[in-house]
Amino acid sequence: MATLYAVGVGPGDPELLTRKAERVLRQADVVLAPASNPGEASVALETIREFLDEGRQEIIIHQFPMTSDRSRLLPAWQEAAALIAEKVLAGRDVAFVTIGDPLLYSTFIYLLRIFRESYPQMAVEIIPGISSINTAAAVACVPLAEADERIAIIPATAGLEKVIEALASYDTVVLLKVKPLFGEILEVLRQMGRQGSTVFVERVGSSRQKVLTGLAEMAAHSPDYLSLMIIKRAEVHT
Amino acid sequence: MATLYAVGVGPGDPELLTRKAERVLRQADVVLAPASNPGEASVALETIREFLDEGRQEIIIHQFPMTSDRSRLLPAWQEAAALIAEKVLAGRDVAFVTIGDPLLYSTFIYLLRIFRESYPQMAVEIIPGISSINTAAAVACVPLAEADERIAIIPATAGLEKVIEALASYDTVVLLKVKPLFGEILEVLRQMGRQGSTVFVERVGSSRQKVLTGLAEMAAHSPDYLSLMIIKRAEVHT
Repeated sequence: MATLYAVGVGPGDPELLTRKAERVLRQADVVLAPASNPGEASVALETIREFLDEGRQEIIIHQFPMTSDRSRLLPAWQEAAALIAEKVLAGRDVAFVTIGDPLLYSTFIYLLRIFRESYPQMAVEIIPGISSINTAAAVACVPLAEADERIAIIPATAGLEKVIEALASYDTVVLLKVKPLFGEILEVLRQMGRQGSTVFVERVGSSRQKVLTGLAEMAAHSPDYLSLMIIKRAEVHT
Repeated sequence: MATLYAVGVGPGDPELLTRKAERVLRQADVVLAPASNPGEASVALETIREFLDEGRQEIIIHQFPMTSDRSRLLPAWQEAAALIAEKVLAGRDVAFVTIGDPLLYSTFIYLLRIFRESYPQMAVEIIPGISSINTAAAVACVPLAEADERIAIIPATAGLEKVIEALASYDTVVLLKVKPLFGEILEVLRQMGRQGSTVFVERVGSSRQKVLTGLAEMAAHSPDYLSLMIIKRAEVHT
């Protein structure tokens, strides 16, 4: 039975794909990669290009507008879902590639919902991927948690109040997409005395990766869209 | 310069190793694997055995007692750290293998602390691994989070109060090591109306993997040590 494989390709380094992801990508009949803007490269596709055979496989780049406006996103997802379902139901294995892990803050989740509602008979298999969180911890050499410690993972877009609440209660707080609240977050961390227990990681796993450990250094930096912070209750020494 | 590589081997399926982990393991001079009991197989070692060359590589199984008693654990960690440091400082690349990810609830974190204090000159590189959390989400086909949703990761050993607090506030709660509080947790989930939004996954990625989605089914089951639950605020359909 033909299957849709949702393949997590990890943070962007082809070596951080799993062996299973590599096998599935080499065997797929169709590989569909998301891109944000027309003409722009798909980061997921660039990560896996070395495993593909463009002579044998059909490679599709699908545009997903870079917006949180659901009225613009929904048609793009529905179109992608219909395209994928048509191919799978015609007997072809399709791999949908996604940066990081397919079930952790990924566009694939929206597609999965459409498949469940509109194409429930289609076989779907998820291939987990290394997330930016695990990779950021590895490059900064900061433990995420041990023993009974608790972790909160929070997109900064959830609001500063949620961030402060988590910092007060959890042993480790991972803040995603810190760009819009960066100044406010740094001020909170200063007030809470977290100078020695915060790391900032931008574009982890890419050639433009940046790791910062001092709040002053962070304050002098203008973070980009793919930035996260790991904040521990105790001091970390990197 | 010789390096200690902390290699996350994922949940136990050799296909869920990263390509980087495979390369590092094939190239290492020494591979050190933890085991809980004398004579017992190391799960991490069984996962990677196909990549090793016992003729060329030195393979060491190191006993770490299965206990939370630090006075028994500390000597075992210090002994392992000294053994590793001796080999690395003598110019040999050592790979320490660990199930899941080396910085997420792994024994390696204790070793890392000893290296920082006692062998700060030793080069350490972390190779991230697929965690049981990402794998459990994949096999159960349950999204961990999307958009602005927040995730709490809590070892049940942190206490029932912390579990209830997280369930009341977070969009997704991942409960690890649920065995000791399993009955109490199921009762809380019943009271909170989370029947349709909980999945239970045991020994994910192994041949003994079990996925349960109904609270009644869970109540009839006696979970083992390697069990987790993913609990969403909204209904999930698996």
